Amino acid sequence: MAVRAARLQGRQTGIVPTMGALHEGHVSLIERARVECGFVVATIFVNPTQFGPNEDFTKYPRTLDADLQMCEAAGADLVFTPSASDMYGQHAQTFVRVTKLSESLEGAHRPGHFDGVSTVVAKLFNIAEPDRAYFGQKDFQQQLIIRRMVSDLDFPIEIITCPIVREADGLAMSSRNRYLTPEERATATELSQTLKMAQKLAAETQLSAAEISQRMQQRLSGTPGIELSYALIADPETLEPLEDRQVTAVALIAARIGKTRLIDNEILQFR
Amino acid sequence: MAVRAARLQGRQTGIVPTMGALHEGHVSLIERARVECGFVVATIFVNPTQFGPNEDFTKYPRTLDADLQMCEAAGADLVFTPSASDMYGQHAQTFVRVTKLSESLEGAHRPGHFDGVSTVVAKLFNIAEPDRAYFGQKDFQQQLIIRRMVSDLDFPIEIITCPIVREADGLAMSSRNRYLTPEERATATELSQTLKMAQKLAAETQLSAAEISQRMQQRLSGTPGIELSYALIADPETLEPLEDRQVTAVALIAARIGKTRLIDNEILQFR
Repeated sequence: MAVRAARLQGRQTGIVPTMGALHEGHVSLIERARVECGFVVATIFVNPTQFGPNEDFTKYPRTLDADLQMCEAAGADLVFTPSASDMYGQHAQTFVRVTKLSESLEGAHRPGHFDGVSTVVAKLFNIAEPDRAYFGQKDFQQQLIIRRMVSDLDFPIEIITCPIVREADGLAMSSRNRYLTPEERATATELSQTLKMAQKLAAETQLSAAEISQRMQQRLSGTPGIELSYALIADPETLEPLEDRQVTAVALIAARIGKTRLIDNEILQFR
Repeated sequence: MAVRAARLQGRQTGIVPTMGALHEGHVSLIERARVECGFVVATIFVNPTQFGPNEDFTKYPRTLDADLQMCEAAGADLVFTPSASDMYGQHAQTFVRVTKLSESLEGAHRPGHFDGVSTVVAKLFNIAEPDRAYFGQKDFQQQLIIRRMVSDLDFPIEIITCPIVREADGLAMSSRNRYLTPEERATATELSQTLKMAQKLAAETQLSAAEISQRMQQRLSGTPGIELSYALIADPETLEPLEDRQVTAVALIAARIGKTRLIDNEILQFR
């Protein structure tokens, strides 16, 4: 396999797992891997097991030709694009579950989602045998869960979490942004604006985490066109909701805008 | 790590995971690995997560000095003897589950047992990065589950199942045999005798699998000192109980003799 050949040449391998429909956020992951690794593998796989029965698996955007061009331009040495039947044999019956971290927030709203994620990432790690793996901070809970899985199952892999890439007006890049109508797209900026507000309140006032969470919820609940799933400040390691101030925290938001569910987050530094 | 160094020298690594209290069965695994691999790792870890709350974890035999001598004599290059806290960090919360195959037989009698097994074996695979792993046929369901896990999660590892090693009178070697009183030890030969009977009936009569299973159950239920858990003939891939004859099957027995639970099995060839 190409990765083992690269290792025998002393090259370290970086993997960038994606579901395709690539945007500048994905590109930043591949570019970072290119800088840090001698051999870069991007994977494109719309993983059916991480979608719920009423979610957007069938209509999830698939833009393979453009994706391959972006991977190459960003510096990937190899793009792995398996089919669902390549990945899941007829008798497949194994899953990897990270328990506590996957029960709240996205896990509570999307039952089974993180089992699908942790299992497919474990598979990709075993297939590609990378030295490093790159994930976006945008899926904050996901990167925590992957880090936990890697630590708990002793994968010999370093997880690198890369900063969120945003549009000029602050909207976090997401493959699902293309679902938004122009009006919804305008409304969606409220998510990052609310996170900025939370950052400012943490840095410049003495409000507690609970009070700031409440302000985030009030702001988003009061915005027409936004159906809030959650908005809160949590511990950045355990994801437990915070009442009090602590040095570092994470503010997390999930909301439906029209039919599109978006998530976003920012690290908060309390003064 | 020693295994990566061995790989760079072009040597393949074999792993023999054990819970210690080694006997000739374990030795046969290490010797087989020694023949087939350039670098042999034996592991000794009494894994708490595969014992139920009322099982024999605390009294499971621990004979480390003798084990290390046996590993060396059998040709192990390295013996990995982690502590429970080495293996399970304070925040560990991840498990690997093979679903269907782990629900019947031992899985039904020992809830959670196979989650513990598959999780610790996944960890050992990630720690040692072997090319091959050796398991005994004595734990028939276990080796099937590990094979399934390896296939489903794409571990780049070949699983080798080695024949059961028996005492002169047929009793399958097991670390738990040392729990038996002399009287129980004599009774225990009924398990392998019953399997021999099943093999003979499959090879030499036209009895169905269901009929042979029934004779196994009758024989063991009628033996004083044996408390039968199960005795049946099953498909050797799916472990589903067989009604009819098929070319190859497996006869499986589990029974309590005194306080000691023993298992045994034999492959059957129907005529």
